[in-house]
Amino acid sequence: MILYNDLFLNKEEVHISYDDRGYYFGDGVYEVFRIYNGQLFEIEKHLQRLKRSCEETQITFPYTMEELQDKLYQLIQKSFVQEGTLYLQITRGVAPRSHVIPENIKPVVLAYCNEVKRPLDKMQSGIKAITQEDIRWLRCDIKSLNLLPNTLAKQNAIKHEVDETIFHREGIITECSASNIMIVKNGEIHTHPVNHLILNGVTRAVVLKLANQAGFTIKEQPFDFNQLKNADEVFITGTTVEIIPIISIDQQKVSNGKPGEFTRELQRLFEKVIPNS
Amino acid sequence: MILYNDLFLNKEEVHISYDDRGYYFGDGVYEVFRIYNGQLFEIEKHLQRLKRSCEETQITFPYTMEELQDKLYQLIQKSFVQEGTLYLQITRGVAPRSHVIPENIKPVVLAYCNEVKRPLDKMQSGIKAITQEDIRWLRCDIKSLNLLPNTLAKQNAIKHEVDETIFHREGIITECSASNIMIVKNGEIHTHPVNHLILNGVTRAVVLKLANQAGFTIKEQPFDFNQLKNADEVFITGTTVEIIPIISIDQQKVSNGKPGEFTRELQRLFEKVIPNS
Repeated sequence: MILYNDLFLNKEEVHISYDDRGYYFGDGVYEVFRIYNGQLFEIEKHLQRLKRSCEETQITFPYTMEELQDKLYQLIQKSFVQEGTLYLQITRGVAPRSHVIPENIKPVVLAYCNEVKRPLDKMQSGIKAITQEDIRWLRCDIKSLNLLPNTLAKQNAIKHEVDETIFHREGIITECSASNIMIVKNGEIHTHPVNHLILNGVTRAVVLKLANQAGFTIKEQPFDFNQLKNADEVFITGTTVEIIPIISIDQQKVSNGKPGEFTRELQRLFEKVIPNS
Repeated sequence: MILYNDLFLNKEEVHISYDDRGYYFGDGVYEVFRIYNGQLFEIEKHLQRLKRSCEETQITFPYTMEELQDKLYQLIQKSFVQEGTLYLQITRGVAPRSHVIPENIKPVVLAYCNEVKRPLDKMQSGIKAITQEDIRWLRCDIKSLNLLPNTLAKQNAIKHEVDETIFHREGIITECSASNIMIVKNGEIHTHPVNHLILNGVTRAVVLKLANQAGFTIKEQPFDFNQLKNADEVFITGTTVEIIPIISIDQQKVSNGKPGEFTRELQRLFEKVIPNS
């Protein structure tokens, strides 16, 4: 079941125009929501971020928040998904190809749900990663459809038989190809501050809030390649992945090569705030 | 008439899948060719660049050069376009959304022609421009569908009631939102060297070749904001725009505010190498 503009359609009924600016410019924005027990987790944060992405790219936000929220819950019900993800994208609309944004163009909304299990194995065992220069544009705070560098970075990870690629820009660790990153050193959590160089991750915010409530010291400051390599613990956060330890970077163990105690504690705290199935 | 994979279809018959990676990742590459007198201008340079864009993004180039060239000429004939452009894009293919590139994915080819007149008025009178920081990714040599920053920059020009936006990265002039840029100072032509920060423009290459043959001094070296503002002449080059003088930058006249003699001479030389209609 697909939400396509105002309609709920079967897959086969959805036809995208080759004149959709999303298709020839990647001119659109998106969100991936987590569905736990049929509920959209942190829906308000996602919708606010989507609205901001629209504002920053001058794409018309096509609904009120209430209307959109209502449509998304209708979609979940029609899709019978209890545990999974909801993908939602808004492109600027359909018009003959021109860099100039046409007046009165009507956005195209597309959304669908997928059954996706929580990655319990990886949350338990941790994953390996490589590092790579961050070559993306300088507005990574906008969750846009221009994701070619991200997919190439993820593919680079796969080529190296690891799960994720960590980005550094001029020596500073920013985030990963599809997740935020945090390190723990001497009991302190370090993560890149929210600015134009990273996505303001919803799970990142939840984790920082939980860490703060638990009395952890948090440093939202740039940290560099050396701090990454000498960290006691490293983990990623993301809507689909939740909190996953990184146990190896560029074929070198993180600390003793096992998930650390701070990461475990944050996982336990996170577990408590997600709706139980 | 649309070329869609191996078929020539009418507009209404072309349906893009919402699972096309071009639609949700901008995961594809493209070319815009100039049609003069029913002929594709500098077709070899365009096809070579397209092939390189595919290689750099690991997209399968779906035809031999001869096959593709043959298809493009069939498209022109079926479209009855004598003077215009041919737009061609190749996306990685159709697959459920995942950053990881699926094995054996089959690329999606789309191409069509448009009647587009040569911009004789602007070539004659020149255009105005603004400047803006270049916030694009660091592989601008790849002609990819990730064009959101380019469209936003073009829109910024329109907002300021000018025609083009000139990009500078840390003070160095790179190119424009949809064209390359050159300046003339004391009879010497300056333009950014071909590297990862600019597109290796076909018209740029033709113009430099003609300038070289005419005995002009060419400096393919980075030049900065001050050199731009103090240039004797400034012009852009591009497949659709050919050679257009810039007569005003950030509301400040370039030299005396009129197209310069070197620019005029290059326009005359360019006119001689395009097929006459």
